[in-house]
Amino acid sequence: MSQPAYLTGDKAAIDAFIDKFDTFLFDCDGVLWSGEHLFPRIPETIDMLRQRGKQLVFVTNNSTKSRSDYKKKFDKVGIAANEEEVFGSSYSAAVYIARIMKLQPPKNKVFVLGETGIEQELQAEHVPYIGGTDVDLRRDMTEEDFKGIADTSALDPDVAVVLTGLDFHPSYLKYSLGLAYIRAGAKFLATNIDSTLPNSGALFPGAGSSSAPLVRAIGQEPLALGKPSQAMMDAIEGKFHFDRKKACMIGDRLNTDIQFGIEGGLGGTLAVLTGVSKKEDFLADGAEVAPSAYVDQLGDLLG
Amino acid sequence: MSQPAYLTGDKAAIDAFIDKFDTFLFDCDGVLWSGEHLFPRIPETIDMLRQRGKQLVFVTNNSTKSRSDYKKKFDKVGIAANEEEVFGSSYSAAVYIARIMKLQPPKNKVFVLGETGIEQELQAEHVPYIGGTDVDLRRDMTEEDFKGIADTSALDPDVAVVLTGLDFHPSYLKYSLGLAYIRAGAKFLATNIDSTLPNSGALFPGAGSSSAPLVRAIGQEPLALGKPSQAMMDAIEGKFHFDRKKACMIGDRLNTDIQFGIEGGLGGTLAVLTGVSKKEDFLADGAEVAPSAYVDQLGDLLG
Repeated sequence: MSQPAYLTGDKAAIDAFIDKFDTFLFDCDGVLWSGEHLFPRIPETIDMLRQRGKQLVFVTNNSTKSRSDYKKKFDKVGIAANEEEVFGSSYSAAVYIARIMKLQPPKNKVFVLGETGIEQELQAEHVPYIGGTDVDLRRDMTEEDFKGIADTSALDPDVAVVLTGLDFHPSYLKYSLGLAYIRAGAKFLATNIDSTLPNSGALFPGAGSSSAPLVRAIGQEPLALGKPSQAMMDAIEGKFHFDRKKACMIGDRLNTDIQFGIEGGLGGTLAVLTGVSKKEDFLADGAEVAPSAYVDQLGDLLG
Repeated sequence: MSQPAYLTGDKAAIDAFIDKFDTFLFDCDGVLWSGEHLFPRIPETIDMLRQRGKQLVFVTNNSTKSRSDYKKKFDKVGIAANEEEVFGSSYSAAVYIARIMKLQPPKNKVFVLGETGIEQELQAEHVPYIGGTDVDLRRDMTEEDFKGIADTSALDPDVAVVLTGLDFHPSYLKYSLGLAYIRAGAKFLATNIDSTLPNSGALFPGAGSSSAPLVRAIGQEPLALGKPSQAMMDAIEGKFHFDRKKACMIGDRLNTDIQFGIEGGLGGTLAVLTGVSKKEDFLADGAEVAPSAYVDQLGDLLG
């Protein structure tokens, strides 16, 4: 494995790197922005790539936002992008449930542990669901809840899938229901299992933390449909029809973004140092995952 | 390893088994009761053991109740027991923090993720704490929370320990604070890490599920102070001064109770089939953990 090329400040190397690809897949959090903070010269960098004729896809594991929500965020921060260019883990999960699992009614409901992004994408794919942002499930667990879950009278018999994503409103009742559904045979899916969520320059619990109570209780990992799952790469390729050898994945996390690109057989991967992984993580001898190149920040591609 | 002896219905074998021991350590949930449901003939069995001069210790991983709460529960269901005979995982954790860690003020606070049982036992050992049942931490996470945790202005600089137990009121804010304290150097402790909680004849998320989001986010397991941790056995022996070779651990879980007794070098272990583990789990060839004997239910010891 050759050492990753450091491109920041080397205009010739940057131009040569960009010329090698027709398609760029972007991670968002940690690459374009951190929470509400947009990194320097991002809109200009995106515009430059468009002017050079590149196909752009924004691939995000953030399950709390739908593609429509993402479009609003792009507009707000001033990045030119359209909804069809966004491919999120909630969308990936909805597509998997609707088009791969093809559940037949009446046993075709999804019990959601997560936020509105998941609900919106399930709706878009016409998949019925319960749970999610239902505020009644945020209440305290009662003795009646324990009994109703134990004797299954509190369970919806049509639930066939438990889908977890980042959940800002965890509750013991939700976890109890999720556990009961999985024990009753529901398939355990996750939009993604990122261990942490970057925000405001620090790390917070990620979607993998939201599914972790169920994983611990049931002793089984969910099928994850976000990066680095190749189910997501296959779905992206199916939609965007690009040449993998002429595509580059850009991200801040070695074990999600960069691994996703490498395992997907993309022509290249580019790490940015504005997020989770540090250059020491991939420059070290024996690093398990390393990008083909890296820059300090995405805006450095402007030269 | 010899096959576990099945004692139910065999009066001579039961008498011989009981005679071998001076001390019985009891698990509670799944042995004496399941949630609010008391198993048959439990008070009579406890009375019989007392009449035969046995020392009894109730060793529970349930961190939501203090010893005082347990005394109330024993009274309510009609089991004769006193507070000093109860040794819970919250008490075990409080004793560890107060007497082993011996934190010096001002940096001696515990951030609690759990219920009142933990708080009461920390109070009893004069350990200052924050979090726990503080209802303000059950609110929605705000942008100000993200920023305040990221820049540490929302953190209490005196927190030296994060202690997790079964928490019926999880919140993203609590998990974010717990993660931040551990990343800032606080020691990560758990009252116990049971994967599930038996109630009403079914399984619900256990204390291990409550700590799981932090484990996933930080990539580190807590030091657990409940069964099967031998830190708990040492503390019990230190308090009750019994002969391990003349002591028997009674429980329903192979990987907590029975393992706890075996690793502690007790003279015997007795499994009951009213809880989590099934006899197939320890009678199977190659079973990793097996009791010395088992009964269908504890009341069978009455013969």
